[in-house]
Amino acid sequence: MRAMSERAVWMFGGGRADGGKDDGELLGNKGAHLAEMSRLGLPVPPGFTITTAACRHFIESASRFWDEAADEIAAGVAHLEAATGRRFGDPRDPLLLSVRSGARASMPGMMDTVLDLGLNDETVEGLARQSGDDRFAWDSYRRFVQLYGAVVLGVDRELFEARLEARKKARGVQDDTGLDAGDLRALVSDYEALVAERTGAPFPQAPEAQLRGAVEAVFGSWMGDRAVRYRRLNGIPDDWGTAVNVQAMVFGNLGADSGSGVAFTRDPATGAPDLVGEFLPNAQGEDVVAGIRTPRPLTCAAATRVSAAPMEESHPEAFRALAGHLRALESHYGDMQDVEFTVERGRLWILQTRTGKRTARAALRIAVDLVREGRIDERTALRRVEPKALETLLHPAFDPEAPREVVARGLAASPGAAVGRVVFTADDAEAWAERGEAVVLARPDTSPEDIHGMQAARGILTARGGLTSHAAVVARGMGRCCVAGAGELRIDPRARVITLPDGGVVREGDWLSLDGGTGEVVLGRLPTVAPEATPELEALLRWADDVRRLRVKANADTPRDAETARRLGAEGIGLCRTEHMFFDAERLPAMQQMIVADDEDGRRRALAKLLPFQRDDFAALLRAMDGLPVTIRLLDPPLHEFLPKSDEEIAEVAALAGVTEDRVRRRTAALHEANPMLGHRGCRLGISYPEIYEMQVQAILEATREVAATGGDPRPQIMIPLVGFASELAVLRAHIDALIAAADLPLAIPVGTMIELPRAALMADEIARHADFFSFGTNDLTQTALGISRDDAAGFLADYARRGVLDFDPFRTLDQDGVGRLVAIGAERGRATKPDLDIGICGEHGGDPASIAFCHRAGLDSVSCSPFRVPIARLAAARAAIDD
Amino acid sequence: MRAMSERAVWMFGGGRADGGKDDGELLGNKGAHLAEMSRLGLPVPPGFTITTAACRHFIESASRFWDEAADEIAAGVAHLEAATGRRFGDPRDPLLLSVRSGARASMPGMMDTVLDLGLNDETVEGLARQSGDDRFAWDSYRRFVQLYGAVVLGVDRELFEARLEARKKARGVQDDTGLDAGDLRALVSDYEALVAERTGAPFPQAPEAQLRGAVEAVFGSWMGDRAVRYRRLNGIPDDWGTAVNVQAMVFGNLGADSGSGVAFTRDPATGAPDLVGEFLPNAQGEDVVAGIRTPRPLTCAAATRVSAAPMEESHPEAFRALAGHLRALESHYGDMQDVEFTVERGRLWILQTRTGKRTARAALRIAVDLVREGRIDERTALRRVEPKALETLLHPAFDPEAPREVVARGLAASPGAAVGRVVFTADDAEAWAERGEAVVLARPDTSPEDIHGMQAARGILTARGGLTSHAAVVARGMGRCCVAGAGELRIDPRARVITLPDGGVVREGDWLSLDGGTGEVVLGRLPTVAPEATPELEALLRWADDVRRLRVKANADTPRDAETARRLGAEGIGLCRTEHMFFDAERLPAMQQMIVADDEDGRRRALAKLLPFQRDDFAALLRAMDGLPVTIRLLDPPLHEFLPKSDEEIAEVAALAGVTEDRVRRRTAALHEANPMLGHRGCRLGISYPEIYEMQVQAILEATREVAATGGDPRPQIMIPLVGFASELAVLRAHIDALIAAADLPLAIPVGTMIELPRAALMADEIARHADFFSFGTNDLTQTALGISRDDAAGFLADYARRGVLDFDPFRTLDQDGVGRLVAIGAERGRATKPDLDIGICGEHGGDPASIAFCHRAGLDSVSCSPFRVPIARLAAARAAIDD
Repeated sequence: MRAMSERAVWMFGGGRADGGKDDGELLGNKGAHLAEMSRLGLPVPPGFTITTAACRHFIESASRFWDEAADEIAAGVAHLEAATGRRFGDPRDPLLLSVRSGARASMPGMMDTVLDLGLNDETVEGLARQSGDDRFAWDSYRRFVQLYGAVVLGVDRELFEARLEARKKARGVQDDTGLDAGDLRALVSDYEALVAERTGAPFPQAPEAQLRGAVEAVFGSWMGDRAVRYRRLNGIPDDWGTAVNVQAMVFGNLGADSGSGVAFTRDPATGAPDLVGEFLPNAQGEDVVAGIRTPRPLTCAAATRVSAAPMEESHPEAFRALAGHLRALESHYGDMQDVEFTVERGRLWILQTRTGKRTARAALRIAVDLVREGRIDERTALRRVEPKALETLLHPAFDPEAPREVVARGLAASPGAAVGRVVFTADDAEAWAERGEAVVLARPDTSPEDIHGMQAARGILTARGGLTSHAAVVARGMGRCCVAGAGELRIDPRARVITLPDGGVVREGDWLSLDGGTGEVVLGRLPTVAPEATPELEALLRWADDVRRLRVKANADTPRDAETARRLGAEGIGLCRTEHMFFDAERLPAMQQMIVADDEDGRRRALAKLLPFQRDDFAALLRAMDGLPVTIRLLDPPLHEFLPKSDEEIAEVAALAGVTEDRVRRRTAALHEANPMLGHRGCRLGISYPEIYEMQVQAILEATREVAATGGDPRPQIMIPLVGFASELAVLRAHIDALIAAADLPLAIPVGTMIELPRAALMADEIARHADFFSFGTNDLTQTALGISRDDAAGFLADYARRGVLDFDPFRTLDQDGVGRLVAIGAERGRATKPDLDIGICGEHGGDPASIAFCHRAGLDSVSCSPFRVPIARLAAARAAIDD
Repeated sequence: MRAMSERAVWMFGGGRADGGKDDGELLGNKGAHLAEMSRLGLPVPPGFTITTAACRHFIESASRFWDEAADEIAAGVAHLEAATGRRFGDPRDPLLLSVRSGARASMPGMMDTVLDLGLNDETVEGLARQSGDDRFAWDSYRRFVQLYGAVVLGVDRELFEARLEARKKARGVQDDTGLDAGDLRALVSDYEALVAERTGAPFPQAPEAQLRGAVEAVFGSWMGDRAVRYRRLNGIPDDWGTAVNVQAMVFGNLGADSGSGVAFTRDPATGAPDLVGEFLPNAQGEDVVAGIRTPRPLTCAAATRVSAAPMEESHPEAFRALAGHLRALESHYGDMQDVEFTVERGRLWILQTRTGKRTARAALRIAVDLVREGRIDERTALRRVEPKALETLLHPAFDPEAPREVVARGLAASPGAAVGRVVFTADDAEAWAERGEAVVLARPDTSPEDIHGMQAARGILTARGGLTSHAAVVARGMGRCCVAGAGELRIDPRARVITLPDGGVVREGDWLSLDGGTGEVVLGRLPTVAPEATPELEALLRWADDVRRLRVKANADTPRDAETARRLGAEGIGLCRTEHMFFDAERLPAMQQMIVADDEDGRRRALAKLLPFQRDDFAALLRAMDGLPVTIRLLDPPLHEFLPKSDEEIAEVAALAGVTEDRVRRRTAALHEANPMLGHRGCRLGISYPEIYEMQVQAILEATREVAATGGDPRPQIMIPLVGFASELAVLRAHIDALIAAADLPLAIPVGTMIELPRAALMADEIARHADFFSFGTNDLTQTALGISRDDAAGFLADYARRGVLDFDPFRTLDQDGVGRLVAIGAERGRATKPDLDIGICGEHGGDPASIAFCHRAGLDSVSCSPFRVPIARLAAARAAIDD
């Protein structure tokens, strides 16, 4: 066994300290900052920290630890005695201690705190005499025995509470404050009897034994079940250990000139540079937290008509000292601080400081304000704002204060808050919206034919499908709020009714609220808070743009999406899905006619009708993105997605196409696929029906010519989906290049491919020979590499999360081990053939911060995401560059 | 330009030669073997070979080639003049030449042969005088002008034929033989006029010019369109070039004591050690091939009552000489030879020898006989028999002579020949078969519920699905003949009728014949030839077993399959699919009850009913494979595959399970999947419903105990499917290990996993920590790596083949570039964690020779395939080891 080689005890207090803020590894977070504050000359109750190294030593051998550390700890106690002028265990004027754990990371499941340690049947009398307050002394002793009995000696907390309640009942009082010193003395006897009965030994009276018990209990709790389990889940190594902080007690409950409180150096809700907090006179810190009495505001500014006098008014001197210390602390740490303090008979003591938690809005404002105040630099500001936090800033949200009747929960598929009247078909959504109604579109699931309804709705609710189901993907693209896969609901579009889990029903026209940030489905109309595009956000994103290396593009199919994307900072369109253009009511018949045609000639006739539409779509998109690249993906989905299902629709298509209904039915049956995701789609369509891609390329070329002719700067790129074999790309590219050459345009049009099959990533060196650029389609790459259909995954991925098999959703965050390895292989092999190959990613992951960081590390050139996620991606890309 | 550095002309003849059989690269195949025969002292007409290097030189610069080679060629001609005693162009007794191309590989599209070169208006008279046969001389000249005019001068063949026909018509004769010397002389004039008219120059009279023309034409044809295209398709490099063989003419058409023939040293149909061939008196070789006159047999043994006298009888001396030479050639080459010969006035000349083509049956018999005769060793014998050839030996086949009315073509999904009466449901198939009918089961496609019908049928015909569709996979497993995806047919099981492409119909009970080797669907009853398990096959496979490193196991789900596999040499079961066991009529209800159960309790009650069935299944399987490993895969398919579709069935299931029909319908709807291949299946079921795998493992443990208790040697292995994350395997294995430990059996039960997802291959190092063995499931790995659903691929893979995008079926032969890379990565990473990890493959590719060779190279330990493919795999594994 290793002997303890370094000192186990580090002192602080009285303007000096052995350690400081950078010693968190050894002293824990709390201990390091106590030492730091002491060095800064802040009024910290003197104390010492027993190190995390000592904890490790204890875990190896508890008995030897104490043998070796006892002297050092005694020296620590002596230091406190010198600093306070009191002696530990002195029956006349005892030094009392607080003992708290303090690890490197905040960790639930650990023993937390023992206060008033050093009290016993003798010293309690001394405390009474010294404080001149019998009740205070016995209440302190009562608290100590209760806390120590429970957390150190392991006596059930309930048993203490039961005796306290019994005593209150006997005395006919409601609150603890109704008990007098005599009651409390009796209660202490009850407690000590309880402890003796449960532990088979009297309550320890010797202060040294009390201290040893408390320290060993803290160290022991490091290996307790809950703490170990928490560390496993959060990847915290067992050998970090915890430190123990032993400090002289200070009392906020010594009368009206005492009190305890918490303070934030800035408003944690808004980020405003105002001192914010709470103060409770004549109370210990735990009383503030317990929330039995209503605390007072700190400042006059924060006071309201109904609040009691703020601390600034009631304890002006202590407040002035506090305000000064808070400014010093924020300035020293360069960030908003969350501080605990106590006033003992008018004297202020700072008990703890830590970086304050804050809302997304506050994080943004504080970071930008601190840069403007010259406290931090821009890179530091960028690291202070979580990209995901921007989500709440970019979408409307429900008023968090409003009560909500949650009737079901689905997946938080697309953020935002939507309130509307329920409709069950896309046509109804459009019709109702046109007459000015706010609607929520509820569907079992959605298909491309529902797009106009999704566009018209405020929010979309589906019973089936995962985070990358059609509804989710399209809703995110549109920036529409969406709750997907709410499997508890039965959504019956024919009966126009949603059946709730409790049997209740929601009918057409009823009001529903969807929270796209939590996946909650709420009955009725919740009040919403609108998003604001603040100057702080603009500033932060400008700094991000200066720092990041990854380009950020958007997935956009319409001029409207493109404009949104451009406004939010997109540097081009990384993915334009052309299939959405075929679902428009004007165009679908021609598409269907093409599909049911007998031969190439018939297909070409139908395609000729589609060409003008496509050309105009592309021209509008190129205009909206003037001067920026627009990557257009040729037709990807299987043709059967475009065919009609109902008898009526079949009759309609047959009539329009001039064929029999039987022919339409047979064609539909022939195109049916067992696994459409792995079926006749993507470039496979281009191989089977060259005329389809030919029409699309012609439309791109004509649109380019048109935009260029009217003074624009069109920059189209052509992208071929679902390539698995280099020969696929070679054959298709030869055809496309011939069309481009024939068009004789004054600009080059790059032709590239999506890498979205494992084989494509593995064979990227060969594929790169025929590609001007790569774009990783990580949605499909995830589906194929993991063998998981995104549409069918919701059910079992929930079981995976429940059983701890998978702790992330691979359709939301890139599976870096598996899919990421394919991306890395693909990028490396592609660049082996073409060192300057432009490589991006255009799956859903393009908007996920962790995935963006991966793309940066993998050396990709760009990410492409939904328009509304562009700001998030800009920030995430900057943070990735900083972390690199 | 490179000068010709080596000599261009290699001589042979008169018992000597410059080259030999190993000079094929330079002399071409034909030239090398002519030289070899000459060295062996065989009577080869003297000649010389112009090398392939000269051909390359010619292609670089035709004019310089002739300048530099002319002298050598003249020396070659002089050598022939010396050997024959005739002079080239001598008007009295001219030397005549044959000029033939001869590349390293047989290659269609090349200029082939010019005979009788050296004839002109003068030398024809000399030939007439020397032969004493005017008609012979003029016929030779006529043939020469026609051949040279067509192949060297490029005059349309038809034009010569037209003049020949006109002349015959004018003379009122049917055959060429009806024309006399005068006619032929006139015809030569016609031909020469034709050539002059078409080429603008007279027919070349100078023999040297004729020779130059012929040689240049052969070399030039190397770069002809057809030859280049053929080389591209077959991967033959352009720079191989062809050689030209120039030989003194010998004539088989100089009267009754002359003749031409072909001979095989052994019977190419049966492999019997009998001299087999044909002989045509008074004829040149081309006449034998033309088939206008009926050739005679060579031997008395081969003569029949109706045949004319065999050569052995009519030309006994030449025959004896031939027989001797054939024995010498076979002995020298160590393989069956295919020989061309000519008898010129009683003297035998050998014109060519090459390795003879043969049937699978003959290949096997010859290889084994040659070993027994001490001519070749066992390894050589193994290389002589193509594994695929065994297929035809292991399955019944149609009599190749019988006429067949092919009405449609599907995929050759499972080999064999089936004749039976058509039925349309599995139940009918079973019922008809029980009353002794031979039936063919016709279905649009099959599902697991059809298995009993497939078992009962002689053959299976489907209209949909590819080579790895359910029908194809199951049929191969059973060794049933299957034609799958015959898309031209409309199979309507309700109307019980098949509609043919021509509108005809086949009704229930009509006879149909299926050729599983060609995919042909034939009306009526074709006669079949039964397979024979010959001693030769047994011998060859024993030798294969001595040589191979890969173990060969079988995919088998029933004791019957297991017995078949064992009989065919399987060393265990590599894949037992447990799901097939649940489709039995006795068991399905319990399975369905399990699926529609409300909770775990309900599922456990239903599973308890299934356990005895599974236990008995496993016990029977372990007994059949006593002493050999049996790898049992836990449940893999999605649960919805087991649920009923029709209203009646739903009512039945609801009644049996004691739930409402609505509940069954809702459960079915809830389990519906967009892409079942990527859905809730494999180990995902084990995570969601631990009780299912628990039941299966219990059944395995109980079966093991039972078999061991009755003196057996059970060796079960448990295999978990569709693992993508190491954590899946860790969680499942912990549960399984606990069950195994609780069973306290006296043997270890390995627990392993399938590697059938790209992620699993990439993360094999982590997965190997929890696995005792790996088995690559290359069916699913192909589907996911390539993103191609095997059920949906037939349509577009046909387009791929047509457009030259893909030249193999990745579901039949492993895609070595893509899927193979994943296999290699998986094996390497798995062994990085566990160097001794046992790794196999159990996809369809386990029975494909090319894929087996890959598995050998990738260092796998075993392959597992359908029982009927076990012999093929044994041979393929041996050949892979030999090639290594």
